[in-house]
Amino acid sequence: MRRLAIVTAGGDCPGINAVIRAVAKTAMNDYGMEIIGILDGFLGLIEKRWRKLSYGDVSGIITLGGTILGTSNKANPFRFAVGKRGEEAEFADVSDEAVANFESTGASTLIAIGGDGTLHIAHKLSEKGLPVIGIPKTIDNDVDCTDFTFGFDSAVATATEAIDKIHTTAQSHHRVMMIELMGRYVGWLALFAGVAGGGDVILIPEIPFDMEVVARRVVERSRRGKRFSIVVVAEGAKSVAGDIVVQRIIKDSTDPVRLGGIAELIAREIEKRTDLETRVTVLGHLQRGGTPTGFDRVLATRYGSRAAELAAEGKQGVMVALQGQDIVTVPIADAIARLKSVPPDHDLIKSALSVGTSFGLP
Amino acid sequence: MRRLAIVTAGGDCPGINAVIRAVAKTAMNDYGMEIIGILDGFLGLIEKRWRKLSYGDVSGIITLGGTILGTSNKANPFRFAVGKRGEEAEFADVSDEAVANFESTGASTLIAIGGDGTLHIAHKLSEKGLPVIGIPKTIDNDVDCTDFTFGFDSAVATATEAIDKIHTTAQSHHRVMMIELMGRYVGWLALFAGVAGGGDVILIPEIPFDMEVVARRVVERSRRGKRFSIVVVAEGAKSVAGDIVVQRIIKDSTDPVRLGGIAELIAREIEKRTDLETRVTVLGHLQRGGTPTGFDRVLATRYGSRAAELAAEGKQGVMVALQGQDIVTVPIADAIARLKSVPPDHDLIKSALSVGTSFGLP
Amino acid sequence: MRRLAIVTAGGDCPGINAVIRAVAKTAMNDYGMEIIGILDGFLGLIEKRWRKLSYGDVSGIITLGGTILGTSNKANPFRFAVGKRGEEAEFADVSDEAVANFESTGASTLIAIGGDGTLHIAHKLSEKGLPVIGIPKTIDNDVDCTDFTFGFDSAVATATEAIDKIHTTAQSHHRVMMIELMGRYVGWLALFAGVAGGGDVILIPEIPFDMEVVARRVVERSRRGKRFSIVVVAEGAKSVAGDIVVQRIIKDSTDPVRLGGIAELIAREIEKRTDLETRVTVLGHLQRGGTPTGFDRVLATRYGSRAAELAAEGKQGVMVALQGQDIVTVPIADAIARLKSVPPDHDLIKSALSVGTSFGLP
Amino acid sequence: MRRLAIVTAGGDCPGINAVIRAVAKTAMNDYGMEIIGILDGFLGLIEKRWRKLSYGDVSGIITLGGTILGTSNKANPFRFAVGKRGEEAEFADVSDEAVANFESTGASTLIAIGGDGTLHIAHKLSEKGLPVIGIPKTIDNDVDCTDFTFGFDSAVATATEAIDKIHTTAQSHHRVMMIELMGRYVGWLALFAGVAGGGDVILIPEIPFDMEVVARRVVERSRRGKRFSIVVVAEGAKSVAGDIVVQRIIKDSTDPVRLGGIAELIAREIEKRTDLETRVTVLGHLQRGGTPTGFDRVLATRYGSRAAELAAEGKQGVMVALQGQDIVTVPIADAIARLKSVPPDHDLIKSALSVGTSFGLP
Repeated sequence: MRRLAIVTAGGDCPGINAVIRAVAKTAMNDYGMEIIGILDGFLGLIEKRWRKLSYGDVSGIITLGGTILGTSNKANPFRFAVGKRGEEAEFADVSDEAVANFESTGASTLIAIGGDGTLHIAHKLSEKGLPVIGIPKTIDNDVDCTDFTFGFDSAVATATEAIDKIHTTAQSHHRVMMIELMGRYVGWLALFAGVAGGGDVILIPEIPFDMEVVARRVVERSRRGKRFSIVVVAEGAKSVAGDIVVQRIIKDSTDPVRLGGIAELIAREIEKRTDLETRVTVLGHLQRGGTPTGFDRVLATRYGSRAAELAAEGKQGVMVALQGQDIVTVPIADAIARLKSVPPDHDLIKSALSVGTSFGLP
Repeated sequence: MRRLAIVTAGGDCPGINAVIRAVAKTAMNDYGMEIIGILDGFLGLIEKRWRKLSYGDVSGIITLGGTILGTSNKANPFRFAVGKRGEEAEFADVSDEAVANFESTGASTLIAIGGDGTLHIAHKLSEKGLPVIGIPKTIDNDVDCTDFTFGFDSAVATATEAIDKIHTTAQSHHRVMMIELMGRYVGWLALFAGVAGGGDVILIPEIPFDMEVVARRVVERSRRGKRFSIVVVAEGAKSVAGDIVVQRIIKDSTDPVRLGGIAELIAREIEKRTDLETRVTVLGHLQRGGTPTGFDRVLATRYGSRAAELAAEGKQGVMVALQGQDIVTVPIADAIARLKSVPPDHDLIKSALSVGTSFGLP
Repeated sequence: MRRLAIVTAGGDCPGINAVIRAVAKTAMNDYGMEIIGILDGFLGLIEKRWRKLSYGDVSGIITLGGTILGTSNKANPFRFAVGKRGEEAEFADVSDEAVANFESTGASTLIAIGGDGTLHIAHKLSEKGLPVIGIPKTIDNDVDCTDFTFGFDSAVATATEAIDKIHTTAQSHHRVMMIELMGRYVGWLALFAGVAGGGDVILIPEIPFDMEVVARRVVERSRRGKRFSIVVVAEGAKSVAGDIVVQRIIKDSTDPVRLGGIAELIAREIEKRTDLETRVTVLGHLQRGGTPTGFDRVLATRYGSRAAELAAEGKQGVMVALQGQDIVTVPIADAIARLKSVPPDHDLIKSALSVGTSFGLP
Repeated sequence: MRRLAIVTAGGDCPGINAVIRAVAKTAMNDYGMEIIGILDGFLGLIEKRWRKLSYGDVSGIITLGGTILGTSNKANPFRFAVGKRGEEAEFADVSDEAVANFESTGASTLIAIGGDGTLHIAHKLSEKGLPVIGIPKTIDNDVDCTDFTFGFDSAVATATEAIDKIHTTAQSHHRVMMIELMGRYVGWLALFAGVAGGGDVILIPEIPFDMEVVARRVVERSRRGKRFSIVVVAEGAKSVAGDIVVQRIIKDSTDPVRLGGIAELIAREIEKRTDLETRVTVLGHLQRGGTPTGFDRVLATRYGSRAAELAAEGKQGVMVALQGQDIVTVPIADAIARLKSVPPDHDLIKSALSVGTSFGLP
């Protein structure tokens, strides 16, 4: 009986369990394979921790957030931290062990479910001869060669609902309400949720903003009689001038103190430049939690089922992807060649501008 | 100052107001147009009822279900019911009046927001010289030439949440739980929500089912120790044999009594053929209600904004559509040439089969 | 080591698992007891089916709808259906066996989680010497001597959300929208959800309605320019005249056909008496499903924890109850002496009338 | 025609509009009164800003978060900030003007909807001869003499849903997840949501915690094989030793920088004392937003309707309150005599301890 291994790595997001279920059920139902679940991301591969998944293990988990296999953010076989916590970390390449461990599972293919970081590792393992198939997962939607990663739609839903809530409370006070969303390098989430939530200002990494324009914008709204402005900020947003930067105060070597994220910095600038009260909400980990949306469950099922089929066919080094209406396969190498950022001429940017949203541009 | 008219027709769905907002704001902000809202669908065009929409009228409505303009299901200018209610209806072609009335609004273009029926009317009005631009709206997702109509994703979300609720109560009893969703001619909604909700059986119009197979399927699950089965049925599902048909008892000429929808009929068959208790939930109008999902709000904004742009450019006879990542335009004539039904070889059918879902096929 | 048995019986509702968790964790943590879970309601007691619950079994289930123990609606030890399905049922008193079976579990007390029917059975078992403690569960809120049963608030939440959805679609059409909620004998659910959803008409069993008044009411709203009316109906609502009655057509002895619930009957009457289109939604099993509200989880935790404490103290024949801010105990006999129906002079009836809601009274 | 004035003051919360609607509809329907809406809290009373509310103004707002009248947090007629922003504030007593302005509205009674601060002001205005009736509003539930303020249940619902989301992502990583909820002086919200969300540790102002106990608790869970701990913290929680205190770094006189709330401080301590990764989410303004729960809409309707009735009867100086099942009236003076904090012997504390929750006590 053939075996298929699954690993889930990087930050978690809604839909991972739906993918695991689809991979495992397809592999068992259609190809009679056994399923090995690697525990806690690549850490499990390094530490030889995995377990066989039964049909029961993957039943009834389509609604479940998180990952039944666990994940780890930092365990990279090519740069694995050794030494004790607290000490200066040293890094070692343990990828040979990882490959050997994989072989000891008896699996013919590894399904790697993850975002950009995971797919980089998967690609390098693949180059070392480990047969790998990737599934693009991330709330950031920054994986190239696919229209959507799974998890993104669920994060948009959570962020949109949060902006809706902020909206109702904003209307009661004369205030600028800021909400900071995830998105260190790309702004898809802030763009989609910002448009969906009717944000008055949306700030994303791809479009550096002019602080003065932002301040003027919220003042103008106030002058036109609008009680409030909603400002949606991706955590990686930055000013054109480069002067509004997330910093840390280093009190002493062991206790750096973060001075607040970008939203808080912008809020202070707005309060300095205008007479408007400003309040900040940082959505944080809520964006990774909860049950996946219908859209994400469907996408996850399509991705997972196809990945199992590809494994059964002996394919490797590829990632499943959504292009238009179709599930296709692309070389992992292509998918990781660059981050998929928001093109400044995307029609949604244009539409947002047309309905009156500002991106902080003059 | 140029004018743009908007009409919303057919059954309502989440996202219509988001489209109205995007059309109106784009037309006002980018092209300085005035907006005329036709009231209650084509009925307003026939009865000369419309009103000017201000910027305030279309602000803050992106979250709002329904349509601020009202709609009507039955008012077709080409076949308009005349005569009193209760009497035998007679139909008249009042399309010349509709065209004349449109001209009296002073608008240069009509944005018609609707599904297949609305777009058919729009096309015929277009052939009579009324410049029209279509926007595809329906929870059924059955409009051709576009990947998605807006409203569909919201209906999937509502239906998925309903199946999730049914699921938790199903697990407490030994029962077959059936849920009937909208979809008289096409099964997109039942397919997506059925897969997202982990339905054990999904029955859609495009794949006629074998009643015996359905009954056997739920019995098998019960024998394997599963406490319950979830059966998701589109209202237009039908048996291969043609023997399971939604009928009405005619007690007397004024009071036909419906014997229940297809789900209820199938439930009775299951109870006849097995010893399993069966319960039916008909989701009904809930599927049309509520606030639109983030996905639908974004799509509605892209559609509306592009439609206003097309109107400003003097385009007509076209519909905006989503194809892959792009908002494109297609001739309305092409979009209405056929209903977009679920292709039996769609990869999602295949994936659903792989994860163990039955479509009632032997 | 002492043992505690738990049984969950009757229709399921959100919060049962939260109660099971609180009973079991309290009994294990505070009193070192073992927990026996009776399976599938009293059926498990009759058929000797139960299992020991571990701490892990009851961890992480507070959010879960349904009951991990299963339930049954019909298994009454005092009137147990024997004979094969399809045949005329005969009933036998198997309560002696039930008591003997209970004794064989080794448990000193039975925690019975259920509504009026379950508590009646519990009381009679108690009279036969089986030490029982009751916890009031039902979406109907009809158990006496307690302000609230758990499950009620969650059902109100689900029904309110449904009315909200109906509302948005109602506003788009000129229509009467009816929604039928559970409540065969009492109208708490329809009253609370009807008020919360801003229902224009609320019909409950405790206040027989005048059909003519209902019809006049929706016509008046229409005349005053309101586009729609929302009518919330408990399934047990009835007309004063007694002429609007849920019936079944008996086509032949094996296949009675229900002509629709009370909402459908009222809808037909409205359409007969007015020229208003009417649409019906029957919320059905959705009201029993889903994750419990915060309110219900807290109440369930308080109930369950107290019940375990009472069991440890050797109490029996009592039910936990909420009275004002306090969790108290009442004799089960008192709680089942009568159904708690809505008093016609309840201040919420008065408030509802004041905000313009009609109860169908002249 | 008699007039009734309404003011909504202090931080907003879900249900205010439901109260406004109930007050206004009852006063119009039952007593033929006119309604004056004071704008932006007591600021509107000071600045003579109000408007007449029509029946249409208060229709369809029961679902709406926020307040259609606006509110202000800081406008206290007895201590009103004068002078320009940025300058050192000076305060003046403008209560005589406020009373005079109220008289110029022609209203016979002022309905004051607010929390502890608002009710204090209302009481002092009442002592100056302004007839006032209070309605207890706050997400904190800290108003005395009433079982519940409206707004509290909605905040519990939002916070519980947030903890549920945190839960799913927590399960994927080995982490301590902290969530900070509102509650500067009392812990009702953190207690209810913490229990509902299955929090492992709940820290509230009424029960000072021992940092070492908290750290030990999360370590023990980790040792027992639990992947994660959920720690729910009210913003006013404090350590027994008084050493864990929210501080601000003062970089310069115009720019104090907050070092993070209590949750962040505790998180750092946990990371110092254990080897567990810790993540913080601050729920912030989300707790005040969104549509009210069914529970809150019902309570708001009962409060509002009764308050209008009291006004019509010429009552003053009283507040409506929920005691058990009844809406009663209490002197405002009694309600503000002390904050209603969580009694350490509350049965919910006991239940929480029994199901294994720690309050950070040795």
